[in-house]
Amino acid sequence: MPLPFADRLNNVETSAIRELFKLLGKPGIISFAGGFPDSAMFDVEGIKEAANKALTEEAGGALQYGATEGYNPLREQLAAFMGSKGVTVAPDGLIVTTGSQQALDLLGKTMIDPGDKVIVEGPTFLATIQCFRLYGADLVSAPIDANGVDTDELEKLMAEHKPKFVYLIPTFGNPSGAMLSLERRKKVLALAVKYNTLVVEDDPYGDLYFNEAPPPSILSLSKDVPGSRELIAHCGSMSKVLSPGLRVGWMIAPAELLAKATMCKQFSDAHTSTFAQATAAQYLKAGRMPATLAKVRKAYGERALAMGAALKRELGDAIEFTQPQGGLFFWARLTGAGGKTKDAGEFAKRAINQGVAFVPGAPFFAGEPDVSTFRLSFATADVGKIEEGVARLGKAL
Amino acid sequence: MPLPFADRLNNVETSAIRELFKLLGKPGIISFAGGFPDSAMFDVEGIKEAANKALTEEAGGALQYGATEGYNPLREQLAAFMGSKGVTVAPDGLIVTTGSQQALDLLGKTMIDPGDKVIVEGPTFLATIQCFRLYGADLVSAPIDANGVDTDELEKLMAEHKPKFVYLIPTFGNPSGAMLSLERRKKVLALAVKYNTLVVEDDPYGDLYFNEAPPPSILSLSKDVPGSRELIAHCGSMSKVLSPGLRVGWMIAPAELLAKATMCKQFSDAHTSTFAQATAAQYLKAGRMPATLAKVRKAYGERALAMGAALKRELGDAIEFTQPQGGLFFWARLTGAGGKTKDAGEFAKRAINQGVAFVPGAPFFAGEPDVSTFRLSFATADVGKIEEGVARLGKAL
Repeated sequence: MPLPFADRLNNVETSAIRELFKLLGKPGIISFAGGFPDSAMFDVEGIKEAANKALTEEAGGALQYGATEGYNPLREQLAAFMGSKGVTVAPDGLIVTTGSQQALDLLGKTMIDPGDKVIVEGPTFLATIQCFRLYGADLVSAPIDANGVDTDELEKLMAEHKPKFVYLIPTFGNPSGAMLSLERRKKVLALAVKYNTLVVEDDPYGDLYFNEAPPPSILSLSKDVPGSRELIAHCGSMSKVLSPGLRVGWMIAPAELLAKATMCKQFSDAHTSTFAQATAAQYLKAGRMPATLAKVRKAYGERALAMGAALKRELGDAIEFTQPQGGLFFWARLTGAGGKTKDAGEFAKRAINQGVAFVPGAPFFAGEPDVSTFRLSFATADVGKIEEGVARLGKAL
Repeated sequence: MPLPFADRLNNVETSAIRELFKLLGKPGIISFAGGFPDSAMFDVEGIKEAANKALTEEAGGALQYGATEGYNPLREQLAAFMGSKGVTVAPDGLIVTTGSQQALDLLGKTMIDPGDKVIVEGPTFLATIQCFRLYGADLVSAPIDANGVDTDELEKLMAEHKPKFVYLIPTFGNPSGAMLSLERRKKVLALAVKYNTLVVEDDPYGDLYFNEAPPPSILSLSKDVPGSRELIAHCGSMSKVLSPGLRVGWMIAPAELLAKATMCKQFSDAHTSTFAQATAAQYLKAGRMPATLAKVRKAYGERALAMGAALKRELGDAIEFTQPQGGLFFWARLTGAGGKTKDAGEFAKRAINQGVAFVPGAPFFAGEPDVSTFRLSFATADVGKIEEGVARLGKAL
């Protein structure tokens, strides 16, 4: 007899992507499918030094139970890191989370009652969709373009659905790669105040810009919009810039929300690994982050340029896309030009047969999917692999 | 205007213990209040070596995203570790969790619908009570004695309440220190089968025995009770024997439950820190665990003996308790002999004034509390401090 599982599990489906990922093991496959940074970029020596320092200077703190809110030396470093990006926050104005995925989970746990509306971008991060649905959220999808979420449409949806909160990845979003314009960021803040609605700014990619820095974060801009700061939750992460394996993220939010999230976290995992937290704190303290960021930006920038040029050359007007200015992803749409397929799922299957993998866009939509879309990561393949992989895409199409 | 938090937050109260813990900062306080191991017992050199090895030999794995189920080298080591304790389990028969607290959270997420009954021991681990209540569980308390849960009463409660599952800490439980007898372990397995009900065996303390090893785990005994293995979830942890700061726990459970828990974990924190997992795996592989366990058992055994003798000497018949054979805790009851107080909350306040802290028992009861009970940890004070602290307890009473 099967175990009597909770009803909430019926709200999520097994990932459509999972099936595709099983095929990635085929020998010789060039993968643009992953959502992760390049392991070759990790500053292994710097992290090793930081871990050694943590275990030498503060073994008690690094190996013992710690405060649920986070390890204080790390909270201080993260507050300073955010300060360098224009956000004034005290160390106790943030909590450390087990990756920013946990921040999403804590937002779900603290905020979402079954049936509550939550507005997300269409498309948005797949694990956000599933995470919020596990808490019973009824997701509403707001359309985006190359400048991020369409704030006029967003306002209509906020007025109509009165959501518990709005979830955005404003900077180089996954999967869209889009960057919310400065004007729209200000509009989002105005909407938060007008509708007295929490806005969650998920920002794991903001530091990965290639040339110009993106507009300031929504959180940073909140200082110019009276009343808005108390309506913004901002999620940050070390995963894309330092190492996902540490599982160190953080959340800056109104004090009341932080207190509730901390209570929920206490019963979720007690606290984030103090060993990982102390290591991350020592790493930041050693001042190695700027050089690491510079290296990562340069490498990913070159790869993004190479991929954009190759896509134009090999696929021409059969696809359309906006060249990303940061992050890890191209988001593209099959145009059907020349009678070619407009079905990205079909395209993905053909691509696997040609030895190249990517992720179709449909699963990233909480609402009606655009099946002509797909996501390409340029992060983990070098320029040579990118050119070869895109040539295979051309053959597949 | 306050944020519109989810209704589930109304199911938990701010911990009564939290208030007490604030007083622990007073200078000169001897604390028997904590539930953590002694930092002085940590094998810092061994962990440092393991971390260095992980970052030298497998930096890619230790710093990159990993499988939600756990890092394979660690799953292999944990399967072997469980094998050394009489449990046959394949590496893919367990998942790694972010401390065993996360295993509890995943059990709640996968199993509990609001209003579901769950049977726990009275008393039981405080964070279990709160964790399950956040998922809306209606907890039913089964009485215990020095031999663990009363299985006759447990059967009555299972028949009456038809719980989603039964949660037990059979070996040196927190807070009771009790050890479930072999006979009762077999009865629990029979009850699982008879009522077709999942039994969760939380076992963070089983390795911390002082002399004789405790009876085999319920999971290990399941091989003798046909059909029972598919009804047991077993939670293990590195926290009490190696380091809580790593946040490495694991869960062994029926395949269907592991699959659902893995899906929930994917949207909770993606995976447990691969950095911590690779470090734990290297530690186990280096073969240092037996010596570490021997050292910890010896130290805690001496402290438990010293505390037992001091309690008899200083408090006499004003309290009653069973001398623990392992774990971290004494569980005692005020008898009221000689007209002394039977209110452990009152006793705790007086004790703080005398410079010694402990935790009253009431919050550990999901049902009607026994206010004459209290918990003393002997783990973090050395023998001299224990004797001085218990002398202060005598003065306080």
